[in-house]
Amino acid sequence: MDLDKLRRDYATLTVRLGANVAPGQIVAIMAHIEHVDFVRALTEASYEAGARYVDVWYWDAHLKRSRLMNATEDSLDWTPPWLEERYRQLTEERGASIVVSGDPEPDLLADVPPERAGLDSMPRLVSRLEMVNSEQVNWTIVAYPTKAWAEAVFGEPDIERLWGDLSAFMRLDTPDPVAAWEAHLTTLRARAQALNEAGLDLVHFSGPHTDLRVGLIPGSHWQAAGFTTAWGRTHIPNMPTEEVFTTPDMRRTEGVVRATKPLALEGTIVRDLELEFRNGDVVRVDASSGADAIRGQQKADPGARRLGEVALVDRSSPIGRTGVVYLDTLLDENATSHIAYGAGYANAMEGGKDASESQLDDWGVNRSKVHTDFMIGGPEVNVTGFTKEGEEIPLIVDNVWQLD
Amino acid sequence: MDLDKLRRDYATLTVRLGANVAPGQIVAIMAHIEHVDFVRALTEASYEAGARYVDVWYWDAHLKRSRLMNATEDSLDWTPPWLEERYRQLTEERGASIVVSGDPEPDLLADVPPERAGLDSMPRLVSRLEMVNSEQVNWTIVAYPTKAWAEAVFGEPDIERLWGDLSAFMRLDTPDPVAAWEAHLTTLRARAQALNEAGLDLVHFSGPHTDLRVGLIPGSHWQAAGFTTAWGRTHIPNMPTEEVFTTPDMRRTEGVVRATKPLALEGTIVRDLELEFRNGDVVRVDASSGADAIRGQQKADPGARRLGEVALVDRSSPIGRTGVVYLDTLLDENATSHIAYGAGYANAMEGGKDASESQLDDWGVNRSKVHTDFMIGGPEVNVTGFTKEGEEIPLIVDNVWQLD
Repeated sequence: MDLDKLRRDYATLTVRLGANVAPGQIVAIMAHIEHVDFVRALTEASYEAGARYVDVWYWDAHLKRSRLMNATEDSLDWTPPWLEERYRQLTEERGASIVVSGDPEPDLLADVPPERAGLDSMPRLVSRLEMVNSEQVNWTIVAYPTKAWAEAVFGEPDIERLWGDLSAFMRLDTPDPVAAWEAHLTTLRARAQALNEAGLDLVHFSGPHTDLRVGLIPGSHWQAAGFTTAWGRTHIPNMPTEEVFTTPDMRRTEGVVRATKPLALEGTIVRDLELEFRNGDVVRVDASSGADAIRGQQKADPGARRLGEVALVDRSSPIGRTGVVYLDTLLDENATSHIAYGAGYANAMEGGKDASESQLDDWGVNRSKVHTDFMIGGPEVNVTGFTKEGEEIPLIVDNVWQLD
Repeated sequence: MDLDKLRRDYATLTVRLGANVAPGQIVAIMAHIEHVDFVRALTEASYEAGARYVDVWYWDAHLKRSRLMNATEDSLDWTPPWLEERYRQLTEERGASIVVSGDPEPDLLADVPPERAGLDSMPRLVSRLEMVNSEQVNWTIVAYPTKAWAEAVFGEPDIERLWGDLSAFMRLDTPDPVAAWEAHLTTLRARAQALNEAGLDLVHFSGPHTDLRVGLIPGSHWQAAGFTTAWGRTHIPNMPTEEVFTTPDMRRTEGVVRATKPLALEGTIVRDLELEFRNGDVVRVDASSGADAIRGQQKADPGARRLGEVALVDRSSPIGRTGVVYLDTLLDENATSHIAYGAGYANAMEGGKDASESQLDDWGVNRSKVHTDFMIGGPEVNVTGFTKEGEEIPLIVDNVWQLD
């Protein structure tokens, strides 16, 4: 396996197709310090694409660990204002953004008291959510293999296996990755269009320990990968991507849901997560491990206890087909259907980008500084849509997509 | 050699004595990405000292190389405003600052066209100079050994040898490093006091290829390590430190000077540098290698061609005694006497911190966005002071300090 070539190809795909960097743009990259080789390749590819300046923020989870272990509790929710300024300036300048995912040590924060861990949301930044909602920035998120991540996933540091999986998910193993991506995006967009034409009012998830009704907002759009900035630049926010998704009505979630895969939450692995909702709010959190990390995070603000996203994925996902839990949301959320508590996507609504907070509240689009996806789909979970008139429309049965 | 323990001791000395972090402070750390182990130790030591937040900016010289090789020329002098904002906010907040020096690859930019290299001053920031001049921040700079640096210095990656040298320079090999530092600082302060009492008007350097007169500003102070912030916090700006220094009159440098050691200038090694000055300005730059990097940098602004610092070091320096060129200014400038072109230290003048730009110009305190030290002292270079009245006062003869 020629990792140098693979790394270059991956960087080029990320820059050219994912972020779709335009000549003259500033490119903001955020990555774990362990991703240094990839960051250098991304930087090179960005300048080759005509970037004006590549601005890298290396994140080091060990420093977060030090903070959580040592700093005073009342300081933990503080975020450096200059760092928020970074995304604000990038938004103003219409820059591009690349985030490298793939936590090198998913269990690093496991022994941090969860009530403290929940207070520090970094590296998540409010300004980054604002940047996303502004539609001024062409952005993407990709994952990058490290030995420590491979070890956490496979039980041994088999980085070549992780590279193999990643290249398949990224279509880097095809003769023409860009063409393969175009075909794939066409499929996903057709699914989103079919859902929009169905005019659903509610989605029902049904399976073992799961009986969940997620109410939708009239007029909200189902979306698939491939966004366009307000100034007309296409980009693919998440790579890989296998989902169609929308923002539900935050007031209309009812019932119980059991996660079908473990969730890696900022250094804590949450297993067998079960949530109960009433009138949109989470009223019960259980898990066989990591429940306190979820409870801590859901104390961040009122929106942290309500849904902001519902997303559908069937067995056609190459990620789901491996059966592996990658302990990274970017991959795991594309293995199967999922929901997220926390911030919704304002731009699922017509005019949502410029909507006031009270307009968003009226619609039922959730506002929060957190956004945590967790996986609830799989072979035993059927998904059914209902229209306002009560018509029942099967969406996913036996893990196979139904709607065309 | 127990490097883990040494690293922890080094980090503790840096945080407690160098930066002298106060409880509740924000600590801004800047380091090369290759210094990750040390940064983690510094972060831990800072939180143990009561830091409110430790804010790390990892620098990656490979990204600078990509920029210099690929970005358009008119973009190269741009600096991210949010990064300038970082030091401005730190100054406002009265934070602490630690910079880790020790370029892991001193020759990385050797093949970059020098006229381009001179345009990009990063990671140097205007806001950092402003921070230093504000006297609001307790700051320090220390060096950290890496294998690549050891290889550049010794011709082999003998990191234990570099650690051995560094621990000696940092007095980490003494039973009580803090006490050893206090004794050392007392010696340096006595030298500065003797120079101030001598009331010099001019310093003359005389040796092979060197006949240089550096005019001083009436009322300017000679300083030694150990600063105090405007709000009363002591700190040691550079560790190690062996120098006494002041800001000369930028208009009164005359003659020729030959560097006595190579200079590592942001990825280019400059050998046998020779500068000629008239009326304060550099009028000729020669070198057996790297002259263009100097010429490029001196085009940054008018101040880049004038002196901002003159500093005296004799053979008592343990750094000078090794005879090694460490390719890092923090160490090399403490091996022997040196001068710097570029920004002067406003706080060498009474009231200099709050002085207007025109007041600084009147005094002759240089303003520039660059500040580059290079070494001009050694066994063959004598240093003599002259008072306004023409009295001749030997300062360094045969590399031995004369003034008590």
